[in-house]
Amino acid sequence: MSKPLVGIIMGSQSDLKIMSAAADMLDKFGIPFELTIVSAHRTPERMVEYGQAAVDKGLKCIIAGAGGAAHLPGMVAALTTLPVIGVPVKSSNSIDGWDSVLSILQMPSGVPVATVALDGAANAGIIAAQIIGAFDAAVQKKLQAYKIELKTKVEESVEAIDKNGFRSLLK
Amino acid sequence: MSKPLVGIIMGSQSDLKIMSAAADMLDKFGIPFELTIVSAHRTPERMVEYGQAAVDKGLKCIIAGAGGAAHLPGMVAALTTLPVIGVPVKSSNSIDGWDSVLSILQMPSGVPVATVALDGAANAGIIAAQIIGAFDAAVQKKLQAYKIELKTKVEESVEAIDKNGFRSLLK
Amino acid sequence: MSKPLVGIIMGSQSDLKIMSAAADMLDKFGIPFELTIVSAHRTPERMVEYGQAAVDKGLKCIIAGAGGAAHLPGMVAALTTLPVIGVPVKSSNSIDGWDSVLSILQMPSGVPVATVALDGAANAGIIAAQIIGAFDAAVQKKLQAYKIELKTKVEESVEAIDKNGFRSLLK
Amino acid sequence: MSKPLVGIIMGSQSDLKIMSAAADMLDKFGIPFELTIVSAHRTPERMVEYGQAAVDKGLKCIIAGAGGAAHLPGMVAALTTLPVIGVPVKSSNSIDGWDSVLSILQMPSGVPVATVALDGAANAGIIAAQIIGAFDAAVQKKLQAYKIELKTKVEESVEAIDKNGFRSLLK
Amino acid sequence: MSKPLVGIIMGSQSDLKIMSAAADMLDKFGIPFELTIVSAHRTPERMVEYGQAAVDKGLKCIIAGAGGAAHLPGMVAALTTLPVIGVPVKSSNSIDGWDSVLSILQMPSGVPVATVALDGAANAGIIAAQIIGAFDAAVQKKLQAYKIELKTKVEESVEAIDKNGFRSLLK
Amino acid sequence: MSKPLVGIIMGSQSDLKIMSAAADMLDKFGIPFELTIVSAHRTPERMVEYGQAAVDKGLKCIIAGAGGAAHLPGMVAALTTLPVIGVPVKSSNSIDGWDSVLSILQMPSGVPVATVALDGAANAGIIAAQIIGAFDAAVQKKLQAYKIELKTKVEESVEAIDKNGFRSLLK
Amino acid sequence: MSKPLVGIIMGSQSDLKIMSAAADMLDKFGIPFELTIVSAHRTPERMVEYGQAAVDKGLKCIIAGAGGAAHLPGMVAALTTLPVIGVPVKSSNSIDGWDSVLSILQMPSGVPVATVALDGAANAGIIAAQIIGAFDAAVQKKLQAYKIELKTKVEESVEAIDKNGFRSLLK
Amino acid sequence: MSKPLVGIIMGSQSDLKIMSAAADMLDKFGIPFELTIVSAHRTPERMVEYGQAAVDKGLKCIIAGAGGAAHLPGMVAALTTLPVIGVPVKSSNSIDGWDSVLSILQMPSGVPVATVALDGAANAGIIAAQIIGAFDAAVQKKLQAYKIELKTKVEESVEAIDKNGFRSLLK
Repeated sequence: MSKPLVGIIMGSQSDLKIMSAAADMLDKFGIPFELTIVSAHRTPERMVEYGQAAVDKGLKCIIAGAGGAAHLPGMVAALTTLPVIGVPVKSSNSIDGWDSVLSILQMPSGVPVATVALDGAANAGIIAAQIIGAFDAAVQKKLQAYKIELKTKVEESVEAIDKNGFRSLLK
Repeated sequence: MSKPLVGIIMGSQSDLKIMSAAADMLDKFGIPFELTIVSAHRTPERMVEYGQAAVDKGLKCIIAGAGGAAHLPGMVAALTTLPVIGVPVKSSNSIDGWDSVLSILQMPSGVPVATVALDGAANAGIIAAQIIGAFDAAVQKKLQAYKIELKTKVEESVEAIDKNGFRSLLK
Repeated sequence: MSKPLVGIIMGSQSDLKIMSAAADMLDKFGIPFELTIVSAHRTPERMVEYGQAAVDKGLKCIIAGAGGAAHLPGMVAALTTLPVIGVPVKSSNSIDGWDSVLSILQMPSGVPVATVALDGAANAGIIAAQIIGAFDAAVQKKLQAYKIELKTKVEESVEAIDKNGFRSLLK
Repeated sequence: MSKPLVGIIMGSQSDLKIMSAAADMLDKFGIPFELTIVSAHRTPERMVEYGQAAVDKGLKCIIAGAGGAAHLPGMVAALTTLPVIGVPVKSSNSIDGWDSVLSILQMPSGVPVATVALDGAANAGIIAAQIIGAFDAAVQKKLQAYKIELKTKVEESVEAIDKNGFRSLLK
Repeated sequence: MSKPLVGIIMGSQSDLKIMSAAADMLDKFGIPFELTIVSAHRTPERMVEYGQAAVDKGLKCIIAGAGGAAHLPGMVAALTTLPVIGVPVKSSNSIDGWDSVLSILQMPSGVPVATVALDGAANAGIIAAQIIGAFDAAVQKKLQAYKIELKTKVEESVEAIDKNGFRSLLK
Repeated sequence: MSKPLVGIIMGSQSDLKIMSAAADMLDKFGIPFELTIVSAHRTPERMVEYGQAAVDKGLKCIIAGAGGAAHLPGMVAALTTLPVIGVPVKSSNSIDGWDSVLSILQMPSGVPVATVALDGAANAGIIAAQIIGAFDAAVQKKLQAYKIELKTKVEESVEAIDKNGFRSLLK
Repeated sequence: MSKPLVGIIMGSQSDLKIMSAAADMLDKFGIPFELTIVSAHRTPERMVEYGQAAVDKGLKCIIAGAGGAAHLPGMVAALTTLPVIGVPVKSSNSIDGWDSVLSILQMPSGVPVATVALDGAANAGIIAAQIIGAFDAAVQKKLQAYKIELKTKVEESVEAIDKNGFRSLLK
Repeated sequence: MSKPLVGIIMGSQSDLKIMSAAADMLDKFGIPFELTIVSAHRTPERMVEYGQAAVDKGLKCIIAGAGGAAHLPGMVAALTTLPVIGVPVKSSNSIDGWDSVLSILQMPSGVPVATVALDGAANAGIIAAQIIGAFDAAVQKKLQAYKIELKTKVEESVEAIDKNGFRSLLK
C-alpha cells in the first residue's frame, strides 16, 4: 500500500462502527489512509504526538471522530496545520448528539474544525477525497463518477415508480 | 491579481459583514479569491452555473455562507466535486442560529458540507488555506507562522498578568 | 386519470413510507396527482426542471418532503410561483427532526414554504385539497364532509365511554 | 375596494407591527383583504364565528398570526375548510419563539396549518397570493414579476461588488 | 355516585392510557369526577359548550390533556373561570414532548393554564384534590395521609438497603 | 386587612419586579395575601417552616417564584398539601429561561407544582383567584367580569381598526 | 469497614441502577462510603437532617443523584458546607435528560453543585476520590494508576488494529 | 503570599471579567491561588505542562473556564489527577451558552469535570473552598460563616418588606 494521505482517528474503539464508513469511502476513491485510536482524554500525549507529526508524515488531512464532550477533533486541529474534518458521534453517553455536535463545531476563531453531520463519517471520507481531488485529476474523475452514481440511484427509483406505481415500492 | 483559488459566495449582501472575515483571512495567507453574491432562493440558476463552473475555473474550494433555512452551501455541494465550506450566518430572521447551523451541517450521505461555527467565516478562510497549504509549501509555512502568532498573543496576556496582576487587566 | 393538479415529490425513496399519506389523502378527495422522486442534492438539474415546468404543466400546488438538511421544499419554492407545501421528514440521519423542521420552515422573506408538522404528510395532502377546494365546489363539499367524519369519530369515543365507562377502553 | 379574498387575523393588537407585512404583500399583488383582531383566548366566540363564516364570505384563505402558546391559527383551521396560513410571532412573552413555532406547526393529522417562519408575515402574504395565483392568471403574472424583482436585487449587489469591490459595501 | 367536582377531558381516545392516571388519583382521594373526550380541533363547538357549562354544572376544576400542538387546555381556560390543569401528553406525533409542553404552558397573560410535567396526569389529579382539599377537611386529611404514604415507601427502601445492602436491590 | 388566603413567596428580592404582578392581580380580585422572601438555597429551614405552617395559617394556596435551578416551588410542594403555583422567573443567570421552566415543571409523580408561563406571575395570581373563586361566589363574579374586560379590550382594537384602518395603529 | 468519607444519596430506589456506579468507583479506590435513599420531595425532613449532619459525621463530600426536576443535589448543597457532586439521572419521566441536567447545574451564586454528565455516576465517584486524593497520598497513587489503566485500554485497541486491521474489530 | 492551593486558568483574556469572580471568592476565604491564561487551542503544549505539573506544585484543585467548544477543563482533567472544576463561559461566539455547557459537562466515563452553572465562576471558587475546607478547619469555619451571611441577606429583605411593604422595594 502506498503512503497514507489521510489519517482517520477516533476517541474510542466503540466509535469504530460509525467511523469505518470514512475508511470505506476512501477505499472507494482509492485513497490510501491510516486508521487508529487516539483518545484526547485517555491518551493526551499520544494525541499531541499524532497531531504534531501529521504534516511531516505526508498526510493531507485528518478525519477525527468523537462523541459526548468531543475534544479530539478540536485538539488535533490545535496541533496541526492540516485541515481537520470532525465527525460528531452519537455515543451512548450523548444527550441526543447535541453535545458531540456543539463541542466539535463551535471552535474559536483561529482553530477551525470542518464538521460534518452527526454520525456522518461517510461524508467525512468524501470531503477528504474532495480535498485531494482538488489537486489530483484521477481522484477528481472518481468524484465526478460518484456524483453520477448518486444520480443514477434516484433515476432508478423514478423509473420503478413510473413503471409499477409508487405503491408497489411500499410493500 | 493571480487566478482565484477560492470562491467566497453568500446568499445576501447582508451576510457580507460576517463573510468578509473569510476574505481577510485569505488575504492574510496570500491566497487569491473571488467573492460574490449567489442566492439559492432568489437566483437558483445563477447558483447552478456557479457550482457547475467551479472546477473548470480552477477553484480549489468554495466558501458559502447563508442564514435561516440556509440552502446555498448544500446546494453548491450538490453541484460541484470541490470541497464546500459552509458558514452558518446568524441572520436577523434566524431562531438563535439553530436553523442556519442545522440546515448546513446535517447534509445527507453523499453530499457533504464542511461546516464551521456560527458566524465562523474567519475559520472558513483558514480551512481553505489549510486545504491549499496541504499541497503548497509557501502557504503551509504561513499557516505555521499563524499558529505561532496565536500562541504569542496568549503569552503576552500571561506576561501582562505575571507583571501587573490580573486585576490590572480588568480596568 | 385526469391531468394531475398536485405534484408530490420527495428527496429519497426512503421518504415514501411517510409521504404516501399525502397521496392517500388526495385520493380520498378525488384530486389527481403525480408522485415522483426529486433529489435536491443528487439530482439538482432534475429539480430545476421540475420546478420550472410545474406551472405550465397545470399543477396547482406542490407537496415536497425531505429530511435532515432538507433543501428540496425551499429550492422548489425558489423555482416556481406555485404554493409549495413542505413536509419535514424525521429521517434516520436527523437530530430528532429539528434539522428537517428548521431547514424547511425558516425560509427567507420572498420565498415561502407552507410547512406542516414533522412527518405530517397527510396534512400536506389536506392543505393541497383546501387550496383546490377554495376554487372548486365539489372538493369544498368533500372537505366539509371530512370535517364531519373527524367529529363523528370523537363522538363515537364519547358514546363508548358513556356506555361502558372509560376503563373498558383501556383493556 | 372589491370583496376581500384573504382574511388576515391576529391574536392581539401588539402583533400588528409584524402582521402588517402580510397586508403590504397582498397590496403589492393587488389582492383585496380584510384585517382584524381575533383572540382565541380573549374572544373565543368571535373566533368561532369568524372561522365558520369564512367560506361563505368568499375568502379563499386565512392568514392567522399569534405568539406564545399560539392557538389562533390551529383553532381557526378547526373551524373552516379554507387553507389557514399560520404566522408564529415572537411576542414578548415567548421563549425565543419556540413556543409560537411549535404550537402552530405541530397540528394533529386532519387539521393542518400551513406554517411560515418565525415573524414571517410577508411570506404568509406571498403564499396567499400563490394560492390565488394558481387560479388567477393576472396574479400569477405578478408573482412571476416578483421573482424577477428578487433576482434583480441580487444582480445589483453582484454588479456593485464587481465594480467597486466588496469592501466598498462594508462602509 | 355524587355530582362530579372535577372534569377530566382529553383531545383524543389515544390520550386515555396517560390520562386515566388522573382518574385513578381522584378515585384514591374519593373525589367524584366525570371523564370524556373533547377535541379542540375536531369538535370545537363541543369544546365551547363544555367550557361554558362547567361552572354551572358544579365543577371545581378541569383537567385537560392533549399532545402536539395542544390547544385544548388553553382553549377551555378561555371558556371558563374555573382553574384548568393542563397535562402535556407526549403523543406519537410530538417532537419529544416539547410542542405539547410549550403550547400548554406558555399561555398569555389573562388566561392561565396550571401545567404539570409531561405525561403527568397523576399529578394533575393531585392538584385537583389539593384545590378541593383546601376547602374540604376530609380531602385535606387524605392528602396528608398520602404524603405519609410517599414517605413510608422511601423509608422501606432505606431499611432494605440498611438490612441487606444496596447491591441486594440491584438483582 | 383580613387574614391572607394566598402566600406569595420568591427566592430572592430580585424576583420582586416579576412577582409583584401576582400581588397586583390578587389586589384586583380583592383577595388578601401575604408576600415575603423565602430562599430554598439560602434559608432552607425558613422554607421548611413556611411550608409546614401554611395549611394551619389558613392559606388556600401558595404562589412560589424562582429562577435558574428553581427549587423553591417544588420544595414547598413537598412540605404542604396546599396547591402550589410555580412561576419560572427568567433570572439573569438563567439559560434563556429553560432551566427555570424545567426545574419547576418536571416534578415527580406525587408532588405536583401547577406551573405557569415563564415570568407569568400575573397568571399565577389569576389561578389563585380561580381556586378561591371555585368556592366563593363573590370572587367568581369578579373573575367573570375580568373575562369581559379582556374581551372588551380586543373589541376596542377591532373598532379602532374598523374606523381608522389598521395602518393608523402602526404609527 | 472504616468510617465513611463519602455519602452517596439518591432521590429514589429506581436511581440505584445508575448510582451504584459511583459506589463501584469508590470501592475501586478503597474509599469507605455510605449509600442511602434521601428524597427531597418525599422525605424533606430526612434530607434536612442528612445535610446538616454530614460535616460532623466526618464525610468529606456528598454524591447526590436525581432525575426530572432534580432538587436533591442543590438542596443538600444548601444544607452543608461540604462539596456536593450532582448526578443528573435520565429518569423515565425526564424530557431527554435536559430537566435533570439544568435543575442540578444551574444553581445560583453562593450554593454550588459540582455537576457531572447525564447518568455520570462513575465520574462522580472519581471526583470524590480526587477530592480525597488531593490530601491523601495513598488515594492519589491509585488515581494515577487508574489514569494508566485508562491509557492501557486504548493502547490495547491500537495494537489490535495494528496487528489484525480495524475491520477485524467490526465483526 | 503562601504557596497557591488552587490554580485558576482560562482559555482567553476575554474570559477574565467572568473568571475573576472565582479569584474574589478564594480571596474571601483566604485561600492562596494562582491565575493565568492557558489556551487549549492556541497553547496546547503549555496546557499539557500546566496539567502535568499541578499535583507536584501542591495545588489541591484547578478551576478552568472556557467558552464555545470549551476543551480546556476536560483536557486539563485528562492531564491531572486533581479535581478540575469547569466554568462554562458564555463567550461572544457561543450559541446561547449551550456549546460551552455541553462541551464541559458531558465528559466520558473516567475523566470527570465538576461543572458549575453558565458563567458560574463564583461558585467554582466556593467549590474549591469546600474541597479545601473538608480538610482544613479554619476554611470550614469561614464556609459556615458564609452560609450565615447568605441567610442574613435574605432576612434583611424579609424585614424590609415587613416594615415598609414590598412595594417600597420596587421603586
